[in-house]
Amino acid sequence: MTSKGILGVVSGFSGAGKGTLMKGLLSKYPQYALSISATTRKPRINAATGESEKDGEDYFFISKEEFEHMIDQDELIEYACYQGNYYGTPRRYVEDMLAEGRDVILEIEVQGASKVKAKRPDTVLVFVTPPSAGELKVRLNKRGTETPEQIKGRLRRATEEAEYMQAYDYVLVNDDLEESIANLHAIFRSEHSRTMRSEKRIANITAELKEMMKGE
Amino acid sequence: MTSKGILGVVSGFSGAGKGTLMKGLLSKYPQYALSISATTRKPRINAATGESEKDGEDYFFISKEEFEHMIDQDELIEYACYQGNYYGTPRRYVEDMLAEGRDVILEIEVQGASKVKAKRPDTVLVFVTPPSAGELKVRLNKRGTETPEQIKGRLRRATEEAEYMQAYDYVLVNDDLEESIANLHAIFRSEHSRTMRSEKRIANITAELKEMMKGE
Repeated sequence: MTSKGILGVVSGFSGAGKGTLMKGLLSKYPQYALSISATTRKPRINAATGESEKDGEDYFFISKEEFEHMIDQDELIEYACYQGNYYGTPRRYVEDMLAEGRDVILEIEVQGASKVKAKRPDTVLVFVTPPSAGELKVRLNKRGTETPEQIKGRLRRATEEAEYMQAYDYVLVNDDLEESIANLHAIFRSEHSRTMRSEKRIANITAELKEMMKGE
Repeated sequence: MTSKGILGVVSGFSGAGKGTLMKGLLSKYPQYALSISATTRKPRINAATGESEKDGEDYFFISKEEFEHMIDQDELIEYACYQGNYYGTPRRYVEDMLAEGRDVILEIEVQGASKVKAKRPDTVLVFVTPPSAGELKVRLNKRGTETPEQIKGRLRRATEEAEYMQAYDYVLVNDDLEESIANLHAIFRSEHSRTMRSEKRIANITAELKEMMKGE
């Protein structure tokens, strides 16, 4: 019996280490499929490394017209507009991977997450956080890629995002990277055994047992 | 921050391989504490090996008077009577281990499980089942320790127990032993990150972020 894949969402404060965590998970457990978002914003250059974000890797960078065409064709699971740019999750890849029985992870922000959960209540929502807000501030300062004003903005945004934590299924404290990778993997692994995903098996076993008893 | 241990219950059809699974879990992950039940029934001799059940290992074998004294003193988390014998879970060991932050597992049957869950809603209930009822019958026959009449009795009991599966949090399909050990461990591991066990952390981070923003 091939069980269908699980749709997961990973969100978290900017500076929580989501990106590193996702990379670590995928390199250790390549069975996960990571959905790539589409956006109309331009690729950013990392101030520290001088490297540009890559199309088809960091995001699918598309035009406003292409994005609005996808909206019209219902080709996005969720989308939102921030600071004048669209961000969204293309449906096709996600559904193909799920049908193949692979667990698919969307790395999206809190509003997108709640839209996906509303449409698909069996989505597993994971919120990644540093052990404390103090530690978040330390990490943001350490990155050295943002101005103090930008860091203030990220902390302000974190304060808003914190209001959504309660709506998540799991709160993953990202302290030690290896530990967090193992925890994230355990979440998806255990979700496959959840009773709500086992309805069919329960019904089959129950019916089979009753059938056996009839024969006795 | 030491998180408190999780109380777990593992139940399942006789013949599902619970015993072997629990032994495997504990030998691979000795951090789990397995609670030992008390009973007033006499130790059984395994017909195949000639070995007797051991006091303090398989059960605490105690007298009816001792058991009833424990009931009177509220020293049992749950207890029940089957075929004229008492079975119950001593409270002390469970609470000591939980307070130490260890995950404690009770291997008890379905009625006991629902009593524990009613008293402590944060208990994690895991139901162990073979992949199918046909496979259950095969395993019971293979054991060779029971008469055909006893096997029939176990299947009848399984039919009753199947009605309780829906009330469990997880349905663990015990097909491959190593796989099942990893799944059971993943369940407890992931439960530590559940939002309902993270209320305090969420409240702390939220308050800390708000405090930071005040200063800005």
